[in-house]
Order: sequence, then C-alpha cells, then structure tokens
Amino acid sequence: MSKNILVLPGDGIGPEIVTEAVKVLNTVNEKFNLGLTLENGLVGGAAYDVHGTPLPEETMSKARAADAILLGAVGGPKWDALEDRELRPEKGLLGLRSGLELFGNLRPAILYPQLADASSLKPEVVSGLDILIVRELTGGIYFGKPRGIRVLENGEREGYNTYVYNESEIRRIARVAFESAMKRNKKLCSVDKANVLEVTVLWREILIEVGKEYPEVELSHMYVDNAAMQLVRAPKQFDVMVTGNMFGDILSDAAAMLTGSIGMLPSASLDKDNKGMYEPCHGSAPDIAGQGIANPLATILSAAMMLRYSLNEVAAADAIEAAVSKVLDQGLRTGDIWSAGMEKVSTEQMGEAVVAAL
Amino acid sequence: MSKNILVLPGDGIGPEIVTEAVKVLNTVNEKFNLGLTLENGLVGGAAYDVHGTPLPEETMSKARAADAILLGAVGGPKWDALEDRELRPEKGLLGLRSGLELFGNLRPAILYPQLADASSLKPEVVSGLDILIVRELTGGIYFGKPRGIRVLENGEREGYNTYVYNESEIRRIARVAFESAMKRNKKLCSVDKANVLEVTVLWREILIEVGKEYPEVELSHMYVDNAAMQLVRAPKQFDVMVTGNMFGDILSDAAAMLTGSIGMLPSASLDKDNKGMYEPCHGSAPDIAGQGIANPLATILSAAMMLRYSLNEVAAADAIEAAVSKVLDQGLRTGDIWSAGMEKVSTEQMGEAVVAAL
Ligand SMILES: CC(C)[C@H](C(=O)O)[C@@H](O)C(=O)O
Ligand SMILES: CC(C)[C@H](C(=O)O)[C@@H](O)C(=O)O
Repeated sequence: MSKNILVLPGDGIGPEIVTEAVKVLNTVNEKFNLGLTLENGLVGGAAYDVHGTPLPEETMSKARAADAILLGAVGGPKWDALEDRELRPEKGLLGLRSGLELFGNLRPAILYPQLADASSLKPEVVSGLDILIVRELTGGIYFGKPRGIRVLENGEREGYNTYVYNESEIRRIARVAFESAMKRNKKLCSVDKANVLEVTVLWREILIEVGKEYPEVELSHMYVDNAAMQLVRAPKQFDVMVTGNMFGDILSDAAAMLTGSIGMLPSASLDKDNKGMYEPCHGSAPDIAGQGIANPLATILSAAMMLRYSLNEVAAADAIEAAVSKVLDQGLRTGDIWSAGMEKVSTEQMGEAVVAAL
Repeated sequence: MSKNILVLPGDGIGPEIVTEAVKVLNTVNEKFNLGLTLENGLVGGAAYDVHGTPLPEETMSKARAADAILLGAVGGPKWDALEDRELRPEKGLLGLRSGLELFGNLRPAILYPQLADASSLKPEVVSGLDILIVRELTGGIYFGKPRGIRVLENGEREGYNTYVYNESEIRRIARVAFESAMKRNKKLCSVDKANVLEVTVLWREILIEVGKEYPEVELSHMYVDNAAMQLVRAPKQFDVMVTGNMFGDILSDAAAMLTGSIGMLPSASLDKDNKGMYEPCHGSAPDIAGQGIANPLATILSAAMMLRYSLNEVAAADAIEAAVSKVLDQGLRTGDIWSAGMEKVSTEQMGEAVVAAL
C-alpha cells in the first residue's frame, strides 16, 4: 500500500532544508520499505510568483489527496508589500491549516543535551527540558469573524478581530492534549485568561469537563501572563501545555527559544484522523536563504514526526531521531547551533551526515 | 498646594507592602516638604467584603479627586468562586483603569546589579538589562464588545471577545511610547501580529504615521511571537517596546521575569494629563499574605514613579530610588530575592531600612 507525501518547500530557506529532509525520507523509505511516494507542490510566495495566489487550487487538491504533508516555510520581504493581504504567503499556510482542518498543533520544545550551551538560560534551569505545547490551530482569533478595518461615523478608522471558540472546537483540542499527556508524564497545564476573557472562561470549563475522562492526568490552569513568566522562570515544571491559537503562537515560540536552538524543533499539525502537515518551528529566514547554511534538522525531525504520527512508521521515525542524535554526537553543527570546538557544516553536509548515520 | 494621594492596599500581600511604601512616602513628604495628603480606600476583594462590590462608588470618586493613586494588589482564591464575574476583585482594578482612562501603562524591566544572580538567564544575556514596556491599558480585547458566552442554534455554547482599536486610541499610546523613547535611547519596537490580525495592521500603520513626528526615534516592528522569542534570546536589543493590552500583559510579565526579581518592579498607569495609578508588577500573592515576608520594594519604587511622573517631584523620587539601591548594597533581602551570604529581612524591616537610608 503506497503512501503519498506532498512536499511543499515554500520560500526562503524552505527549498534548501526540504531538499535534505527529502534525502532522509528517501533513505528510510528504501531501508524500511515504507512504500512512500513523494510529490512536490507550491505554496506561499513561491506559489504566488507562479500562479498569482499563495494557495493554488492544485496544491489544495494535492494536499487533500496526500496521506501527509511536509512543509518548509513561507514568507519573505519580497511579498510583504503586496497590498491585497489575501495574497500574502502566510495566507497559503493559514489556508492549508484551515482547509484541511489541521486543528491539533503539536510543538515540542526539547533541549538536546549536545546543545545545552546554546540556551540563553542557565543550564540548571533548562537541562533535560522536554515540554510539549498543544496549540489549537484552526480557530480562535486567527479565523474569527467579524474582522477587518472599518470607517467610523467620525471618519476615523477602527480595526477589529474576533476571538471565538465553541464547545466542540475546545473539546477536540482538549482531547488531543489529554491523549498527549497520557503518553508522557500525565501533567497538563491549560493556559487561558479566564480572569478577563469570556471565551477562555468557556475554554477552562470544557477543559475541566474533558479532564473527567482522563482521571490519571493532573490538570492545572494558568493565566497566560503567568505562563509566559513561568516558562522563563522554571520551564521544567511543565509537561504538556494546551492553549488557543494566539496564545499558543506566542508561548510555543517562547518555549522553543528556551532551548536556544530553534533550528532543531519540528512540529505537527493534525486533523481528527491524524492526517497531518509537518514543518519546522522556525520561519523562512530570508536573510540567509540560498546560502546553504540553514539548519535542516528541524525539517528532518518534522519528517520523523510525520512517520510517527500520520504514517505509523515508528521504527523509521526512531531511526531518523537516532541518526540526528548521532550527527550531533559527532560534533557536526550548522552555523545557528555552532560553538567553539565543533565542526561547522553546510545545510547539505548536515543532511548527508544524517543519511550516512542511517 | 497640597497633593492628594489615594492609597488602595487591596488584597493578599497588598496591605503589608503598601504599609511600608506609605512609611517611605511620609518620610520624603516631610524631608522634601512635598505637601502630600494620604487617604485610604477599598478596592478588589477587600471592597467586596465590605460593600459587596470590588469598586465602590466611594472609591471611584476618591480616585477621581486624587492627584495620584498608590495600589497594592488585588485578587485571591477567596473570591475566585464568585459566580458573578462582575464582582471579582480584578474587575475593581479594570474598572479603575478604564474609569480613569489610564491608558498608558509603563512597565520597566530593570535588572538591579545587586540582584544579577536572581535571573534564570545567563548573566551575559541580562546584565545591565533596562527595558521599558509601554502597554495600552484601557482598550483592546480587555474591553472590546461584543463579548460573552452565547448558546448557538445547535445548543452548543460559544465564547467570544472582540479585539478592537480605533485610530485615536492607537495614536495616544503611540505618543506615550515615542515620548518615553525620546527620554531614553531613542529606540522603539512596536509589537503586533500584522500578518494575521487586521486590528494590528491599523496599529502598525498609525505607529508609522506618529513616528514621523519623532524622526530621532528609530522605530521597528516585530510580530508578537518573535518578540516573545527575542525577549528570551537577547533582551538587551530592546529599549522601549509598545503594544496593545493583551500582548502587553504577556510580554511585560515575560520581560519582568527576565530580571528574576519581579518583587522589585514598579509600574505606572497614566491618563492623558499624567495623572496616574502606581502599582507593583507582581500580584497579590495570597500564598504568603499576612506572613510579613513579602518584598515591599516594588511598591516603594512605584511610589517613586508616582513622585516622578504624576507629582513632578524628581528629587524625592531620586532619593527613594537611591535609598532602595543602598539597602540592596547593604545586603538586605526579603525571601524572594535572598541568596547565600545576604541578610534575610521581613517586609517591615525592609521598609524601615529604606526609611533609614533616606
Ligand atoms: C506565519 C504565521 C502566520 C504563523 C502563525 O502565526 O501561526 C507562524 O508564526 C507559526 O507559528 O506557524
Ligand atoms: C489582574 C489582571 C486583570 C491584570 C491584567 O491582566 O491586566 C494583571 O495581570 C496585570 O497585568 O496587571
């Protein structure tokens, strides 16, 4: 039974890092006889340049047909000036998330022992850090309506967005979070602003309700301002955190940065059947695009997550993760994670080292 | 000409820390012949317990009449169970901010050299840290309408809030931010999510427009997820940051925690005429309330900010800040900032040491 992977390199460093992840996927495909078929598509600025839209219908139908999607990154200054906001690269990404109902975003923040020094935090605060942030990805203020900019009676303009969640949206992301916690240390912290925002009062209520189905999981609640603080102060207090789209955007980036090596962090965006899109946590880094110096490991680890979550190929996923750990042990480092005494390698050398380690 | 200060101790550790700040205020009042008159009022849970509302009309009219307000903190588990959300302590605080139009919230995040070790970040990342976060405090999603929880046609509930800003709201906080930057290192970073939220597209546009009046200030823009990341990675890149109510809540707490000593950080909330309310950045800490161990320095430094910003008594403000620095040099520490070799003191001892240093 062949499995169909859609590969979307996107913009900036996207194509370079995806090239290396594809090499790794091809290697495990052969080695573990996975029967993967890879096909390419356009999204973001790359799609706009060819088709005049960041999410062409062709890409969307390929995405619907695929068993899983591997994405590089989207966006760059080249398209920031586009007057029509609907044509910007980010809209391609948001359209994929929403169109495929990829509501469950898993963002691990793991400190690799080999890279412990890279963190801006003291070693004792972050050593062994392993948090999973579960972010709702297809609702909340990202997609809420009404939204826009209108002219008021006095001639002034007013901008507005709507932060909205209904019970079923909250319930399904809560389940993803509790299930994730069950596979880990059974601690779930739900982040809200229930002392101010009604939408998160409902969020908290539903989390408590769903929690009754998971008596083994220790559920706690934290206001988002305190959560941002606690991530800086003592991040190891957390196991799994769950929150809405906007708070999740902010907290997952803060958590990722605690490790000091955002070039290492993968992510998964899953629908209700665990079909998913996989992408590095970092962005398209237009400033270093085309130089062959970007770190491909987050994308390679995203491919591993894809094998684990959507394709149920656990052995192949384990093999990739072990190979990444091995190249780090060998002292190979791209510029972003390089430190004195280590060997600085290019994007391609890093990708090939992982292939070799496999 | 006498100046009228309203003192609102509030809940939790509020009364203890405010007591010490009042001692300090009385001392400078005499020493510098400031002509301050202090009067007390109730807010938060303390007001609810007496009047059945967190913001009695009496407090509100005293607040309107005052030249400045010194607040401790509000909130605690005792009132969390109140069914009617309008009666919770936080609503007292939000009502004061909004009722007095205290839209300009200044939150400095300063690392005291004497407390450099308290940070969870590496010394080289935070030494000398001195950021000012300017947070819009009376608009945005905190106060936007419509808001609530409604029942949908299918019987499910939906929670919703509105993130809204008009041009004049943005313009006036932008001016506060640019003016603050002019008094500092002339660098202003405006934080938004203009790649997703229309309301922040308008925010960015107005910031650029107001920036033209301040050609000396270097204005930059950053997405909120990246800002959270950059605060963890390299906070010293920032001088002044300006953002809306919700993002400001999150980022100012993260920034405060970078210093490791949130018990040291004051804040000011100003109206258009620089009348203001002054409070510590930390909360009411109900877990340690009544034990006499809370750190009064953030409240004492809030009193100093009050003298500087609302009462134009710069010499008295300087004197308080110098006195705080002196007690730190003497090695006096409350529990929250204590480290080996230092002398652990109570709330009262700390307050009296500052008075003595004056
Ligand atoms: C590019 C942007 C729209 C996106 C988001 O805000 O979700 C990104 O920051 C992310 O976290 O994947
Ligand atoms: C207590 C709460 C309503 C308040 C806020 O969210 O503004 C607090 O977190 C703050 O930052 O002053």
